[in-house]
Amino acid sequence: MSATSGVRSHQGENTRNRIVHFAMNLASRHGLDALSIGELAKELGMSKSGLFAHFGSKEELQIATIEAAEETFGCAIIESTLEMPEGLGQLQALLTNYLGYLENSVFPGGCFFAAVAAEFDDRPGRVRDRIALSMRKWRGLLERQATIAHQNGQLREGVDPVQLVFELKAFTHEANFNLRLLEDQGVTQHAKVAIRSALKAAASEAGASVLQVGAG
Amino acid sequence: MSATSGVRSHQGENTRNRIVHFAMNLASRHGLDALSIGELAKELGMSKSGLFAHFGSKEELQIATIEAAEETFGCAIIESTLEMPEGLGQLQALLTNYLGYLENSVFPGGCFFAAVAAEFDDRPGRVRDRIALSMRKWRGLLERQATIAHQNGQLREGVDPVQLVFELKAFTHEANFNLRLLEDQGVTQHAKVAIRSALKAAASEAGASVLQVGAG
Repeated sequence: MSATSGVRSHQGENTRNRIVHFAMNLASRHGLDALSIGELAKELGMSKSGLFAHFGSKEELQIATIEAAEETFGCAIIESTLEMPEGLGQLQALLTNYLGYLENSVFPGGCFFAAVAAEFDDRPGRVRDRIALSMRKWRGLLERQATIAHQNGQLREGVDPVQLVFELKAFTHEANFNLRLLEDQGVTQHAKVAIRSALKAAASEAGASVLQVGAG
Repeated sequence: MSATSGVRSHQGENTRNRIVHFAMNLASRHGLDALSIGELAKELGMSKSGLFAHFGSKEELQIATIEAAEETFGCAIIESTLEMPEGLGQLQALLTNYLGYLENSVFPGGCFFAAVAAEFDDRPGRVRDRIALSMRKWRGLLERQATIAHQNGQLREGVDPVQLVFELKAFTHEANFNLRLLEDQGVTQHAKVAIRSALKAAASEAGASVLQVGAG
């Protein structure tokens, strides 16, 4: 690879990132369907053909946008928990970080995934599959920590880790929904109370010792 | 009013209902924005101007569609509970009916309101306001029954009726979400278990006596 083409490909990467980042914030407010290549090109001061060179189709752009959102989600929510001991403590930290992600408006339109999931849930195809994959990964991550908590004796006898995650995730999802549509700021407080009680009710004595008191 | 105009206005009412009914099912799958007057006219075998005569604008059609969906929601979920004693029993029946509404696919695209709420939550205007009004009515109905339960001594001391409704509604909402995107049929079962445990945990002795055992 010549020095010139190296520079060009680095610039290309930057441009691609700039497009995807812009698309991601737009989609969190207006949906993935609002990503028109023509309008994005106008907003970014690029030619339509220049933008096309990076993605080739609207579908490619939508998928790249979902992948970028997954990365942003990972940085905001998952990354800081990776050094923690696995189990109930990590599960609690993931949920607390998710509520922080809503409160800090990491995406201008609330949870990117909740928005695009509702948009694409009845539209079979690659975009829907990619969204479902992201949602399964997130659920899988929570279920993994709940299962480890179960195996480590951090849950009371009879507590089903999958059922527990269903309930905890429901609280975070409901907070996002109420925050966006009803502009009800008190709702993250309801979610925090609900998560705290559910974790406390599910925890064994060993589990209770790893829970952060007062955290979401 | 002459007999002829009476017949005509009755026919007009029927046509309007037919349009709105069609629009409602379409919007539950593809969103309210997919309601193009041109395409609806084609699907229904009407002229565009004929359809325009009934609504005048896309926004009017969208609002009429939301109102019709609210009526359908009311028939499927609320109506059968109105004769019940108010309080915890009626609250439980409303939630059970909501899960039935998902399981029976009253709308082909899952919960109409969850779909359109996510579509319009970041788009200020009359359509968003009308959706938010529907959602507030539903939440208000649940909170009214929880508050009556509280006043009638059907809740344990220290249970906050508003917090309880936040948690119960979260379970129904999560069920809809998982059912639509992840096609996870087991999820209504998770919601039923969650609702049953939350109601049982919140109920005083008097409250427990009005709960249906085994219901959602």
